[in-house]
Amino acid sequence: MLSFEKIFDKIKIAIEELDFSRQPVELYAPIEYTLSLGGKRIRPVLCLMACDMFGGQIEDAVPAALGLEIFHNFTLLHDDIMDEAPIRRGKTSVYKKWNTNVAILSGDTMMAVAYDKIMETPGNMHSSVFKIFNQTAIEVCEGQQYDMNFETDDNVSIDDYLKMIRLKTAVLLAGSLKIGAIIGGADNESAENLYQFGENIGIAFQLKDDLLDVFSDEQKFGKKTGGDITTNKKTYLYLKAFELAKGKTLKNLNTLFTEYQKSDIDKVNGVIEIYKQLNIKQLAEELIEKYYRQAMTSLDKVKVDNSQKTELKKFADKLKGRES
Amino acid sequence: MLSFEKIFDKIKIAIEELDFSRQPVELYAPIEYTLSLGGKRIRPVLCLMACDMFGGQIEDAVPAALGLEIFHNFTLLHDDIMDEAPIRRGKTSVYKKWNTNVAILSGDTMMAVAYDKIMETPGNMHSSVFKIFNQTAIEVCEGQQYDMNFETDDNVSIDDYLKMIRLKTAVLLAGSLKIGAIIGGADNESAENLYQFGENIGIAFQLKDDLLDVFSDEQKFGKKTGGDITTNKKTYLYLKAFELAKGKTLKNLNTLFTEYQKSDIDKVNGVIEIYKQLNIKQLAEELIEKYYRQAMTSLDKVKVDNSQKTELKKFADKLKGRES
Repeated sequence: MLSFEKIFDKIKIAIEELDFSRQPVELYAPIEYTLSLGGKRIRPVLCLMACDMFGGQIEDAVPAALGLEIFHNFTLLHDDIMDEAPIRRGKTSVYKKWNTNVAILSGDTMMAVAYDKIMETPGNMHSSVFKIFNQTAIEVCEGQQYDMNFETDDNVSIDDYLKMIRLKTAVLLAGSLKIGAIIGGADNESAENLYQFGENIGIAFQLKDDLLDVFSDEQKFGKKTGGDITTNKKTYLYLKAFELAKGKTLKNLNTLFTEYQKSDIDKVNGVIEIYKQLNIKQLAEELIEKYYRQAMTSLDKVKVDNSQKTELKKFADKLKGRES
Repeated sequence: MLSFEKIFDKIKIAIEELDFSRQPVELYAPIEYTLSLGGKRIRPVLCLMACDMFGGQIEDAVPAALGLEIFHNFTLLHDDIMDEAPIRRGKTSVYKKWNTNVAILSGDTMMAVAYDKIMETPGNMHSSVFKIFNQTAIEVCEGQQYDMNFETDDNVSIDDYLKMIRLKTAVLLAGSLKIGAIIGGADNESAENLYQFGENIGIAFQLKDDLLDVFSDEQKFGKKTGGDITTNKKTYLYLKAFELAKGKTLKNLNTLFTEYQKSDIDKVNGVIEIYKQLNIKQLAEELIEKYYRQAMTSLDKVKVDNSQKTELKKFADKLKGRES
């Protein structure tokens, strides 16, 4: 079994080898820029790990892994326009560095390039790989739409939120694993169990992200802490707090989120204070643990020797324990 | 051979049968709206005609034809954001009716749906169909980027312009024909010749569009005449006029396009007056005729009986002679 480090290096090199020195430069420079910003490369790593787990040639899964990473970066490019996010991975986002039109069109092109890579999957596997990829692509768009809907919806439930993050984030991790598994020669049941593993890990991953946004060391996290609070984002923490808060606490929470605050820092600190009173951090950690355990149950069902699952388990542990 | 009318009806029904009654409705309603706006359905018609020409089962080409039409409509959705075009086919465009974010995301979803349809192509043809489709998709994005670049580029040549419209418009017509031909069982050479036919007809089609924008009956054209003049669009007419104008005429042309005009109507009428002096309409018609003849030369080389080419020829004539 290849180690995480070996797999990560393989992906890193494959991404560096992508050649976007094409015309018109205005279209391809933002693509090159986006892919050069780095990131955890979680999706392609999962894809190659899954392939390796079933004893497949990981070279066969590299094109699909690249397609998944390019697709993910395309969604970031368009999401940053929609969310008006000026910063991505600590650098200026494409729509801010160039403009909205460039970000739209470079994103569209990235999507087509992603499909190209997916279809480079050798043998007769590209059809089934394509099907999973395309269903995932559509679900990711649905997730982003729910996310936008929630901004103006005052009746979002925790279940709604979990459904949204499943679509927006988890299915792409799950799809990456299933695609890798299929290329690696997995039986259908194991591929499906790996998908379930990915979905649960994906939800845990996003919940962890929400948690880190509020309770983390800004230096390590690389983003400003409390961004979700400043923008009134209806995360699990927000929704759980409103569910539990009563009386004066509820009134304070409402005031902090709906009325003008002297400064963002006051707002963030005020909300964090209430989150602490309501034990929100621990509740979120318990929910993460629940999804993590469900993921492990699915992984247990995958029909390969336990020794083949070590790297994936380590990777999942790392995602759960991460501080950035 | 099936008549144009029969083929058009088949496409019309297939589009009506597409089911977008899915959740979230905010994502799918704009897709349904866009596809219900009608249009000439040129790309799917060409795809089915090409399939039929080689004696293929046109049912086999219907999914790809739908994919091509959905892809085309996706480009319109994103183009309307980029061009800030409030009207599409006489109705409010998606980004105006909803908002930019909805238009971006519904467009992205349409692109994924288009790929889904392309991959529904039966048998073992979906791989080669996919390859043509995807190359075309990327080229269309490149064409749109050149189009945007030209807005701020003062050194656009007529050759640059022809290259841009080849990418932005012609390759999708060409690709539609080639995809239909392949599904219909064409030999490679004939499929390629049909592609060339499509490219030339496509360039002629766009030049005709430019001509109609300036010299047409507004009622029949369905758009405001002179829109390209109002927005200083560097069409063939514009570029040719600047190439030919000398002395006072050149000065007047420059003034009309670069200095403040009392009203759009004065500007449009002033430019049309100069176009008439410079014989631009006839020159454009000659260029259209040139591309039309080149298209016919390619069509002649396609190895099927001439009787099989009648409908396609009639369709090309119709596009050339159209008044809207």
